[in-house]
Amino acid sequence: MTAPGYPKPKVAIVGAGAIGRGWASLCAAHAWPTVLVDTDARTMDRALAEIARRARALVALGRADAALVEEGLRAVQPGRSLLHACSSADWIIESAPEDLALKHRLFENLGQVAQHAAVISSSSSGLPITDVAARCREPGRCVTAHPLNPPELIPLVEVVPGKFTNPGTVDTLRTWLRGLGRIPIVLKREVPGNVVGRIAAAVWRECIDLVLTGVVDVDDIDRAVSLGPGLGWAAAGPHLTYHLGAGEGGVGVFLQQLLQSFESWWGSLARWDRLEPEQVRALTVLIEKSYGQKLDELGEARDRRLAAILQALEQARRG
Amino acid sequence: MTAPGYPKPKVAIVGAGAIGRGWASLCAAHAWPTVLVDTDARTMDRALAEIARRARALVALGRADAALVEEGLRAVQPGRSLLHACSSADWIIESAPEDLALKHRLFENLGQVAQHAAVISSSSSGLPITDVAARCREPGRCVTAHPLNPPELIPLVEVVPGKFTNPGTVDTLRTWLRGLGRIPIVLKREVPGNVVGRIAAAVWRECIDLVLTGVVDVDDIDRAVSLGPGLGWAAAGPHLTYHLGAGEGGVGVFLQQLLQSFESWWGSLARWDRLEPEQVRALTVLIEKSYGQKLDELGEARDRRLAAILQALEQARRG
Repeated sequence: MTAPGYPKPKVAIVGAGAIGRGWASLCAAHAWPTVLVDTDARTMDRALAEIARRARALVALGRADAALVEEGLRAVQPGRSLLHACSSADWIIESAPEDLALKHRLFENLGQVAQHAAVISSSSSGLPITDVAARCREPGRCVTAHPLNPPELIPLVEVVPGKFTNPGTVDTLRTWLRGLGRIPIVLKREVPGNVVGRIAAAVWRECIDLVLTGVVDVDDIDRAVSLGPGLGWAAAGPHLTYHLGAGEGGVGVFLQQLLQSFESWWGSLARWDRLEPEQVRALTVLIEKSYGQKLDELGEARDRRLAAILQALEQARRG
Repeated sequence: MTAPGYPKPKVAIVGAGAIGRGWASLCAAHAWPTVLVDTDARTMDRALAEIARRARALVALGRADAALVEEGLRAVQPGRSLLHACSSADWIIESAPEDLALKHRLFENLGQVAQHAAVISSSSSGLPITDVAARCREPGRCVTAHPLNPPELIPLVEVVPGKFTNPGTVDTLRTWLRGLGRIPIVLKREVPGNVVGRIAAAVWRECIDLVLTGVVDVDDIDRAVSLGPGLGWAAAGPHLTYHLGAGEGGVGVFLQQLLQSFESWWGSLARWDRLEPEQVRALTVLIEKSYGQKLDELGEARDRRLAAILQALEQARRG
């Protein structure tokens, strides 16, 4: 639920793929007036059904209020056009595919239809807003707000201002994100992949390498990350983990004891920066063989675990 | 509690530092007969007090039974010597500092005092057991069993057989680890850092780089990892995360859509493999400034979050 006192902006979501649907189910769960628009009619039809399913799933997961969700789902409307969807919006959320040329054109159009006082955020996982909004009128309104998948469950949103972003845009966006129960982290400057994409890329490269070189099976490395370092990081970020890693001495003593180990590992980590087509095929086969294709069931089980962890963390922080 | 039907081996823990203390509190929580030995008398004195504190903390965290812990703490004994501690042990757990020459000598001695049928495991986070046990008599008894910190809370234990490890050693060790409520993952071959050290090193390098280059503050990157990818990985490992990242299409479609993004990030990640002394100093100052020195409080809060997440995951898996 939106915390009392938070204003409810009028939201327009541009792009009805997985991320746009996530934003929309989050807005529905808070009963924010929301218009969704996509150039593809079939994508839109599917999106409205999936948004309802996902918003109601939040109720079953204990993450949203049933009555508010039903009210919110009535407030999610399909937009007839970019102009219709966006011209009266306070907050325009761009969730188009990760394609710079496409986003360029889109932000040029958004700049023309958006209100002077609107905030226009990009959900891009890695393209810098300074590039994305290069052709947008009044680009001070533009900023990156990158959620993780699924956006309605994972609280982190990376906020990245570009060269021309107004400080007020960041402040307003932060207030709205908090209103949606999200936790915004503001980066001090743009880097490829923001911070989450970089960290995820570092982990996935090593996990791919360990699987393709036969050190460990797909499901074993996934379980190892989940029940080992992933679990640890959910409870304490990497820097805090190592500040606590050497007893009373803190990170200074930890580095004295273990920097040499880390340096030997850094020197031996995977260094490649592309996957050959046959590696892509081999990886796909291995992952499909480990998990099969019952993606709905796998996703629902993952979401149950996510919701349970979130609730546990909230209780542990209160207690 | 030890699951019914699991045999209770006689345990000897060699090395009473942070990891040895963790193993000992875990054994205490299961009331396994345990002897702890260290060359340093002061370390031993502190260890016994801390083991009692940590084992009792497991009760407060809902991870152990009070009566069993008190029984277990009576069963944890200091060893007078390596011979006294190890000669009748079924399972010898080496938890000495991460120093190959030291472990070499230790395993040579352990090979002489251990029973023929004993299992001798090394808690090394990254040294290959094939090297560590090179001078040990009957090295088929030797294997890596690397826990994470704190070992009594994080369930993952990486099990890595060396070139000469008997398959029966791995089987016995797995049974005992499950008896302690741990989740063993067996690697197919040795690599520097096992798998956890490599993944942790990949993440920490990038997090250090992002902080030292001024992209994000220490506590912001820690919160970002905890509330974003870390949370996600606790619920689903990296490969499963991306298998679920593109809706119905699975990882094949995900790679079609996002491999190009990952490749651009892989190409731009931090590549250095050592930290200069002034970088070590700068990092230490930044982490200490963010978190201060109340390490006990920080650690207890981290442990509460870990215990809460574990309980939530167990409930979600049952439900």
